[in-house]
Amino acid sequence: MTDFGQRDGYVGVMKGVVLGITPHAQLVDITHEIEPQKVAAGAWILATSYRYFPRGTTFVCVVDPGVGSVRYPIAMYAGEWFFVGPDNGLFSYVFTEQPLHEVVILSKPAYRLEQMSTTFHGRDIFAPGAAHIARGLPLAALGPSIDPLQLQRLDLKFPMRQGERIDGYIVYIDYYGNLITNIPLSMVPALFSSPEVQLTVCGSVITERRRFFAEGEEGSPFIYSDSSGYVSVAVHSGNAARTLHVGSGEPVRLVVKS
Amino acid sequence: MTDFGQRDGYVGVMKGVVLGITPHAQLVDITHEIEPQKVAAGAWILATSYRYFPRGTTFVCVVDPGVGSVRYPIAMYAGEWFFVGPDNGLFSYVFTEQPLHEVVILSKPAYRLEQMSTTFHGRDIFAPGAAHIARGLPLAALGPSIDPLQLQRLDLKFPMRQGERIDGYIVYIDYYGNLITNIPLSMVPALFSSPEVQLTVCGSVITERRRFFAEGEEGSPFIYSDSSGYVSVAVHSGNAARTLHVGSGEPVRLVVKS
Amino acid sequence: MTDFGQRDGYVGVMKGVVLGITPHAQLVDITHEIEPQKVAAGAWILATSYRYFPRGTTFVCVVDPGVGSVRYPIAMYAGEWFFVGPDNGLFSYVFTEQPLHEVVILSKPAYRLEQMSTTFHGRDIFAPGAAHIARGLPLAALGPSIDPLQLQRLDLKFPMRQGERIDGYIVYIDYYGNLITNIPLSMVPALFSSPEVQLTVCGSVITERRRFFAEGEEGSPFIYSDSSGYVSVAVHSGNAARTLHVGSGEPVRLVVKS
Repeated sequence: MTDFGQRDGYVGVMKGVVLGITPHAQLVDITHEIEPQKVAAGAWILATSYRYFPRGTTFVCVVDPGVGSVRYPIAMYAGEWFFVGPDNGLFSYVFTEQPLHEVVILSKPAYRLEQMSTTFHGRDIFAPGAAHIARGLPLAALGPSIDPLQLQRLDLKFPMRQGERIDGYIVYIDYYGNLITNIPLSMVPALFSSPEVQLTVCGSVITERRRFFAEGEEGSPFIYSDSSGYVSVAVHSGNAARTLHVGSGEPVRLVVKS
Repeated sequence: MTDFGQRDGYVGVMKGVVLGITPHAQLVDITHEIEPQKVAAGAWILATSYRYFPRGTTFVCVVDPGVGSVRYPIAMYAGEWFFVGPDNGLFSYVFTEQPLHEVVILSKPAYRLEQMSTTFHGRDIFAPGAAHIARGLPLAALGPSIDPLQLQRLDLKFPMRQGERIDGYIVYIDYYGNLITNIPLSMVPALFSSPEVQLTVCGSVITERRRFFAEGEEGSPFIYSDSSGYVSVAVHSGNAARTLHVGSGEPVRLVVKS
Repeated sequence: MTDFGQRDGYVGVMKGVVLGITPHAQLVDITHEIEPQKVAAGAWILATSYRYFPRGTTFVCVVDPGVGSVRYPIAMYAGEWFFVGPDNGLFSYVFTEQPLHEVVILSKPAYRLEQMSTTFHGRDIFAPGAAHIARGLPLAALGPSIDPLQLQRLDLKFPMRQGERIDGYIVYIDYYGNLITNIPLSMVPALFSSPEVQLTVCGSVITERRRFFAEGEEGSPFIYSDSSGYVSVAVHSGNAARTLHVGSGEPVRLVVKS
């Protein structure tokens, strides 16, 4: 997963480096279209994805505005998976959700490319580090441990409940323009059974609820549960972000009447 | 093949699910940029692609505006390939072109993800179903058969001939802006040998014919045979759809003088 | 690597053809978003990528405005890699940088698809040729040798030094809008140690130098060394091409005071 886009060959080069170290790796792209340098968007996409990959998968994650500067390049074993990337908050949800067994700094020159750049650590540090992990090298061989408490974490704002009201925000806008909030369905089990629900975002109040996209009439916004289990807003055969003029980060208020 | 785009990690997640079931699968993307929810465009791209894949390939195809609603999730063995996806017409060309050996409804919970969403059957039903097929599970294990006559089919409009005249339509506009018609070259074997040819679309009459793109002068539209064997229109070093203001679905009249 | 984009299924079809011939191939995309028919951009991306792939990798490269016309389809063994594609200059940097052990014309019908189109040699000639090379077929079996002196080469303009002044040009603009020049850092070892540096492009004079992106203030343009070792211009958290109104091919003058 990167914010490199797919135009310039950067991702292909990282895969070439991996295959030079571990030729039989299964390589899967999560996405390379994280909005450039938006660590929070990358952290979210990773959070919605990693659980679906087999135990022992190594995730190489590069959204790295601080490349070449003081931030550490790290590798970790968390839950059942390995993660490799910059220590800049990209793994914040993983830290929250999974036991962190081991974290190391990718400092050993033997496991980096010989010729290092200051701008492309994806190729020079993260891809070779991940490839060595994938071929079975113990994390400890890659560099010294780092205390998990020292790791960078995004200031994840969790939703706040006050009576019937929950305040959250738009955590992600997907390819279709659907608005994903940070309010998990588990926090509002009555979302679909309640007599009345109001979701307010950027001055719009949405009350319609649908269990799936094909229901109801086209063009009007509705509340649904997204595929990761978060309260979301879509417009059937339309783009909710454009229709409602909502961007990522906007506050959301959800009222579920009992 | 999906209409999920490549931004959000949805496709990567589907591959993660597949690899959890059959770790050594060869995974190939046809495209994930089918225009959102345009089943007809997806059906066409699949039709121009599947024959080039090895016998026994399993195609996972998700262009699925009715996800979660009443349409069946199906798997089939047709010709020499397996196909998995929603029963909404996406496989219409396959039905027309290949013998349909077996079709089942993907209903067995054992071959779905345990936690089902109502909006992402690509992850929850189609990817696991395809992975089980790819590892050799018989179709019959996945769910009950369905009568092929009950399957949804697009109303495919085939071209009509009347004397020297053939009426068809623009079935697809490709990345370069080339206009692909639904008129197969096999219907007009004299396309390149005839003394005069006229193709009319959206008020433009094109008479120039070229066997390949590099011929002739730049900027003028010409008729050629596309790589799947259909009469098409291109502009050398240009975009025919923009130059001629033609969209998908527009009627085309072809006159081939003898 | 192609200029096919990822919308139409063309790339997937090429992979299907490869896997029909050599089912266990490791398939990696460099990019499919070379600007359509821009051979020079394709040549540059290939030049910055191929070295990072394992010895023996076969590169299938299709940026081919002359498809179907007189240009030869070729395959070669150069340095430690195989390259397959049109003879139109796409391999110019490879020719300059690597010993050319063997070059053949892909003319043997047995190693093409049976049904040939005039517009999609990626599918019909290059993919099957590359697959046969990848499964170990000697190049000589694919067709007759061609004299390397007869191969097409782009007129690569190398940078010119005159005293403290070096004249070059913008060879590529990447996904982030960074301007990559054709001036290698090896030509200006004092770039970062010199008391004063001036880079002039399209009327803008850039004097700030940074070793990595995160330094300094946001929004102002600066000189850096890109990941392939070329003098480049970026705007921190911005797009240099847009900010400075610079396109590919623009002349650059670099003055490094001693």
